[in-house]
Amino acid sequence: MGNPAALVVRGARKAAGRMANRTTPFVRDEWYVVAFADEIGRTLLKRTILDRDLVLYRTASGEPVALDDRCAHRSFPLSAGTLMADSIVCGYHGLRYDANGTVIDVPSQTRCPKGVSIRSYPVHETGPLLWAWMGDPQLADPETIPAPQWLTSPEWVRKSGYFPLRCNYVSLHENLLDLTHLSFLHAGSFGTPDYVSAPYEVTVKDGYYALLRRVVPTMLPPVWAKPTGLEGNPNAARITRSEFLSPGLHVVTATFYDSTLPEGARPEFTISTCHIPTPETDGSCHYFIVNARSFALDQDWVTDFMHEQLFAAFQEDVTGLELLQQTLERDDERPDFFEISLAADRASIEMRQYLKRRAASEAPLASVVHLQTARS
Amino acid sequence: MGNPAALVVRGARKAAGRMANRTTPFVRDEWYVVAFADEIGRTLLKRTILDRDLVLYRTASGEPVALDDRCAHRSFPLSAGTLMADSIVCGYHGLRYDANGTVIDVPSQTRCPKGVSIRSYPVHETGPLLWAWMGDPQLADPETIPAPQWLTSPEWVRKSGYFPLRCNYVSLHENLLDLTHLSFLHAGSFGTPDYVSAPYEVTVKDGYYALLRRVVPTMLPPVWAKPTGLEGNPNAARITRSEFLSPGLHVVTATFYDSTLPEGARPEFTISTCHIPTPETDGSCHYFIVNARSFALDQDWVTDFMHEQLFAAFQEDVTGLELLQQTLERDDERPDFFEISLAADRASIEMRQYLKRRAASEAPLASVVHLQTARS
Amino acid sequence: MGNPAALVVRGARKAAGRMANRTTPFVRDEWYVVAFADEIGRTLLKRTILDRDLVLYRTASGEPVALDDRCAHRSFPLSAGTLMADSIVCGYHGLRYDANGTVIDVPSQTRCPKGVSIRSYPVHETGPLLWAWMGDPQLADPETIPAPQWLTSPEWVRKSGYFPLRCNYVSLHENLLDLTHLSFLHAGSFGTPDYVSAPYEVTVKDGYYALLRRVVPTMLPPVWAKPTGLEGNPNAARITRSEFLSPGLHVVTATFYDSTLPEGARPEFTISTCHIPTPETDGSCHYFIVNARSFALDQDWVTDFMHEQLFAAFQEDVTGLELLQQTLERDDERPDFFEISLAADRASIEMRQYLKRRAASEAPLASVVHLQTARS
Repeated sequence: MGNPAALVVRGARKAAGRMANRTTPFVRDEWYVVAFADEIGRTLLKRTILDRDLVLYRTASGEPVALDDRCAHRSFPLSAGTLMADSIVCGYHGLRYDANGTVIDVPSQTRCPKGVSIRSYPVHETGPLLWAWMGDPQLADPETIPAPQWLTSPEWVRKSGYFPLRCNYVSLHENLLDLTHLSFLHAGSFGTPDYVSAPYEVTVKDGYYALLRRVVPTMLPPVWAKPTGLEGNPNAARITRSEFLSPGLHVVTATFYDSTLPEGARPEFTISTCHIPTPETDGSCHYFIVNARSFALDQDWVTDFMHEQLFAAFQEDVTGLELLQQTLERDDERPDFFEISLAADRASIEMRQYLKRRAASEAPLASVVHLQTARS
Repeated sequence: MGNPAALVVRGARKAAGRMANRTTPFVRDEWYVVAFADEIGRTLLKRTILDRDLVLYRTASGEPVALDDRCAHRSFPLSAGTLMADSIVCGYHGLRYDANGTVIDVPSQTRCPKGVSIRSYPVHETGPLLWAWMGDPQLADPETIPAPQWLTSPEWVRKSGYFPLRCNYVSLHENLLDLTHLSFLHAGSFGTPDYVSAPYEVTVKDGYYALLRRVVPTMLPPVWAKPTGLEGNPNAARITRSEFLSPGLHVVTATFYDSTLPEGARPEFTISTCHIPTPETDGSCHYFIVNARSFALDQDWVTDFMHEQLFAAFQEDVTGLELLQQTLERDDERPDFFEISLAADRASIEMRQYLKRRAASEAPLASVVHLQTARS
Repeated sequence: MGNPAALVVRGARKAAGRMANRTTPFVRDEWYVVAFADEIGRTLLKRTILDRDLVLYRTASGEPVALDDRCAHRSFPLSAGTLMADSIVCGYHGLRYDANGTVIDVPSQTRCPKGVSIRSYPVHETGPLLWAWMGDPQLADPETIPAPQWLTSPEWVRKSGYFPLRCNYVSLHENLLDLTHLSFLHAGSFGTPDYVSAPYEVTVKDGYYALLRRVVPTMLPPVWAKPTGLEGNPNAARITRSEFLSPGLHVVTATFYDSTLPEGARPEFTISTCHIPTPETDGSCHYFIVNARSFALDQDWVTDFMHEQLFAAFQEDVTGLELLQQTLERDDERPDFFEISLAADRASIEMRQYLKRRAASEAPLASVVHLQTARS
């Protein structure tokens, strides 16, 4: 019967203080996926990103547009208005905004005030994903979007899915970067008991955090065994690489083969997944997922089977992460709250320290807005 | 791609700082409609007004009573008690209160403590409306209730309705004082496209703000066209006067006629509506409505038809204002939040500045209670 | 029309300032019932006690265990994990905790860190109740649990029940210590009109507060009349003693007899009830109830009849107390909020002052945790 040791608590709290958590400000100067490309069209879509309400649509020529979802006159949500050619007409008093967020018509008066505009956001499409830059627009460079080439390559088959996730995005990144949880949270789906103790390598650079885990030999769970033909093979190899590529993107690549066959002479099967944890609020994120494979391209049953099995497993993450978020929110006031880290957390710790540094290095939004305006 | 201009933001925020908004304290020294007269009877009705819970009832002789809905002993809501003759018996320990809020019996002891009372509120009935004075009772004068004479006149026919509105009352006043929104929010009901650009006159006095809008010639929407017989007439006149009469009352008067006929020789049709935005909490109000006309008095179908059509249109206001409230609440933390005003907003700006001055000029409630007690 | 007298308000607020209310910190150094003994077994039960989430279970040998419901690694709720022999395996990354809350295995690494543990709580069973000590474990002494002997005696028959109660526990204690509310809140169940004005005696010691009320002669309500055979007897005696025994326990003992028969020569019927208001959050408590009698032991219909009747009456308390809590929460901002006390409140006032002193005398939790750790 007792309490946690004071030394452990103090050490753990000090270490945690250097890591991003659910109360850390968002990293704004970054590209985030705000929608699947096919969600956006000639109707107005409201979506909350980094705690801001955006309105999304496409111009008549198909260019995606992202604006603040708030009229500059009396704050009515523009998403409740109507699209007229390339502009939005506010549903309250009819102010009209072009695709840059500039007011171009005030129907109750003949003269339109000059220079009134709301924030517009740089956007960019890559295959099935629409990205927006949420920070200082002067810094937005679509070349820095870390989208893997397989998102658009014809040599891959893709299928997408989405979860609304009532959990801070940092917890989802951390979940993805240490897959030892497969043996427990996913014990009933695609995890196996040998996963947790398999050898792994960590790669840590500034802004890139990866963990490579080799489970060899192993018996694959159905989701991987059936598509690869390795069903029942006790000598399968399961090599998984989790990569944090940006605050808005995580890629997990899994490779499978028969470990009894020599390298080069064996078929290898690769499945890649973009796990996309776009912050919605500090207590929720949009969990976009694009899964792809480079084999059996024309076999639809593989696409359907993998989608069904994978999303059942990802639902376990959603359920677990939402429980976790609830626990963190409940425990806010506890003076004896602490979290220790383990050896397997190294990549995740570095990643969370990086997120904390990124957030801390950004100027407050108010300054950004003013600086930006002064320049433009 | 960009941000709002700093100059615009600064100017807009400075101007907005002088106007009441959803965070401005309520104006307490004022008459507010707390119920329709026929809602109050020999049962106890609980209603929240200006963020206070009231209990409302009538004495055996029919006098309306408004008290704080809270026992002075252990805070049990009196509305959960019972009415005994003219007094309330608390449902917890049986304390009895007379219609002035004074404790007149404590059944667990023979001696009733002297001088224990809860707040009672001056009330006054005018036709279908029951008003209460929410501030310093010494200042309550029923002569200052700005109720129009048609509320009780036999030369008018009236019909009432109510919306619970999850929106601050200031936004409802503003909605009523600039009817350019008819062309947009009510495009599908009683708005017409020519409304927004019609000529208007503004009247501004201290505490009285009015806007008169003349849409001539126009084609009336069904709600007005059918009862007036001006259906299909492209030369109808639609003259609307919005008047802010007090923090608790807005009156809109609409007059219709055939503009091709000479004044004096033409029938004119007038419809008046009390729009009553009684604050409930800072995020909600009671939206009481009394609509009246001075023609076709005995034609019930006109009453029914207008009620159905008008309340469908008012529902559009409710939906829009609730969206607006949600947007304002969501945006609280945004440092780049701003609202510009337009020429058509002049009356509304003055009205909101007046509400802000009124609220600022009142002493804190604690002082009022003490001063008042010292005097009595 | 007016306001409460300033003198009354000032006096009432000053007196109330010395009493515990719904905002008073919990008394932690105390035994609280956290569950019925038969709720705890070989599955993990999550329960919030004094605003902390606990996980409860039994070891293979039947010993009850209470731990903080939060993994020391990444805060996952342990109640979502699994029980393995006497230990919990976290459902996220598999950390294993023994029944003392110490981490004994980290499956992702061969070395288990030493000295990492979460809080465990001393627990003790008495008959149908499981108690836990929520404060400094060094002070936990099961001998101080104030459980009456009839909880385990074979000469009594018991039946239990539970209400989730959205009300602070102080209000429930107060409700139990002044039963004058029987004539009002329970007018339709086991209250009678003579109850409120019956003579009573108050006993006040430091930490023990009791009120004895004698309603003689009276007519018993069905719940007491039928089991005692005193139905229709206008000379029944109804003697009720309410005793506050600890912040976690209230006992009400009711005795009935025919008052026309001489003492000694008359049958007396005693019914005792543990009313157990375990704080859950500051706005809710677990209301555990154990009712017992020492007569008609083998008559099951009496057990069933009394249970049905009593719990219908206790539901009236739940409904009333939840209304009360809502009123208190609504009124937080009112500067003229006050509560006067009555003669019948004396025991309750002393009890609430005692709770306030107890809460104030405890060190902040952070200190306790550190002190405790230093010692252990």
